[in-house]
Amino acid sequence: MKLCRFGEPGAEKPGLIDHNGDLRDLSNEVADIGNEALSDMSLDILSKVDAMQLPLVEGPVRYGPCVANVGKFLCIGLNFSDHAAETGAAIPEHPIVFHKATSSIIGANDDVVMPRGSTRSDWEVELGVVIGTTAKYVSEDDALNHVAGYCIVNDVSERHFQTQLSGQWTKGKSCDTFGPIGPWLVTRDELGDPQNLAMSCEVNGKRMQTGNTNTMIFTVAQCISHLSGLMTLHPGDVITTGTPPGVGMGIKPNPVYLKVGDVMELSIDKLGSQRQEVKIDD
Amino acid sequence: MKLCRFGEPGAEKPGLIDHNGDLRDLSNEVADIGNEALSDMSLDILSKVDAMQLPLVEGPVRYGPCVANVGKFLCIGLNFSDHAAETGAAIPEHPIVFHKATSSIIGANDDVVMPRGSTRSDWEVELGVVIGTTAKYVSEDDALNHVAGYCIVNDVSERHFQTQLSGQWTKGKSCDTFGPIGPWLVTRDELGDPQNLAMSCEVNGKRMQTGNTNTMIFTVAQCISHLSGLMTLHPGDVITTGTPPGVGMGIKPNPVYLKVGDVMELSIDKLGSQRQEVKIDD
Repeated sequence: MKLCRFGEPGAEKPGLIDHNGDLRDLSNEVADIGNEALSDMSLDILSKVDAMQLPLVEGPVRYGPCVANVGKFLCIGLNFSDHAAETGAAIPEHPIVFHKATSSIIGANDDVVMPRGSTRSDWEVELGVVIGTTAKYVSEDDALNHVAGYCIVNDVSERHFQTQLSGQWTKGKSCDTFGPIGPWLVTRDELGDPQNLAMSCEVNGKRMQTGNTNTMIFTVAQCISHLSGLMTLHPGDVITTGTPPGVGMGIKPNPVYLKVGDVMELSIDKLGSQRQEVKIDD
Repeated sequence: MKLCRFGEPGAEKPGLIDHNGDLRDLSNEVADIGNEALSDMSLDILSKVDAMQLPLVEGPVRYGPCVANVGKFLCIGLNFSDHAAETGAAIPEHPIVFHKATSSIIGANDDVVMPRGSTRSDWEVELGVVIGTTAKYVSEDDALNHVAGYCIVNDVSERHFQTQLSGQWTKGKSCDTFGPIGPWLVTRDELGDPQNLAMSCEVNGKRMQTGNTNTMIFTVAQCISHLSGLMTLHPGDVITTGTPPGVGMGIKPNPVYLKVGDVMELSIDKLGSQRQEVKIDD
């Protein structure tokens, strides 16, 4: 299933994308896409609903964040060997972990607004993992059983804030609007293997990032297992798993950063695409 | 006012400590201590309630986290010059910022449970700041107007996880139970100046940390102003503002870490005290 949330910010309704690609209203079946609605049991009940009998939502809609009430927005850093190389960093021995503030979360196609003073805002297409059932001390073999589904995340990053303001990285990762998630959560049964998905990011129509989740240093299962040894993962937590090469910071000889009016378009196999226009707080 | 939440985990009720130090049930006046109940208007209404007319809660109670629905649990690192010195770190030019996972939050006197594999868990008494009204790009002069109140935080830290697992610090800060907050939120009008509060932490009755918020490198107002330039602070966000000298990691010649059965007792002027017993996940 492809699950989503549509409508104005703060008033999103749950939705489902049917096999024709049409949006259906799920309000009568589930209160929202989040928390206990992400459990295997809940997803199993939803999977038995006849999508074609649900109310069709016509016309243009805004897609909100595809998960409600995200408790933790955890990020794995430098998780693609070729991206680590472009930033000049060594391959990490364990997954690097930081938080994005949950207040950074927006819909897949909402505007990305650079904060005051931003001069080095950058893009990062990433595979997002949505936890469905509580995970603590889970093995790599069991880890994916705790996943509700997957989505695209743009881990938008202000590099000056991230690296030049005395630390830690979260400073450049947590700005408002720096966490587009969606447009859909694709359930794990529909997605299948998360380690063979092509990923791309274009800026103003020019391909900047090209990658595949098969070059992750730590697999999704390894990341979940590692995190669950540090802290309990709860339903609705989102883990974003690192970005492939091609970020603006890595461009030689001169890095390229976002400017007002730029358009980012991100895609991952089976997960649809995102499109954000860049603005700035003044 | 001293506001609190009492009762079993997940079923806490709002409460108030009257001028005799007795606990009163606030359930009929406010749904919970969190979100919009932290606004100036809401706190002003509560301040007009005759505490002595509220139902008295007798007998021993558990104090839950003094704030419900914490959206962000932000931390300022190395914010006391003498603590920076004991860890061997330079004085930071800007506030160092990291997140504790909100899932680490527990009540002031709940058990602290070291995660599997922990060998270097450590204590950190800190002044916690609870945001009452939305703050974005606020000046230092205006910053404290956005504070609902203050509380004690124990920023429990696993030093091996924090520093030896490829980064970032949040790895050692986010473990379940590593964020006791409370017992009370003391409103900003009652607390007054946050920059002259004595702080202490004892372990097994031995004084380990002695400090005062007047030696902070960045004041509470400066921290709020800085953070609000990076991201919007929302009602119920908690900022913990750094620890004075005396952590276990800094003890010469040999660091001292927590072990099962240890008891931590933390106090800050006007904010009461916390007491946690140490256990371990096995």
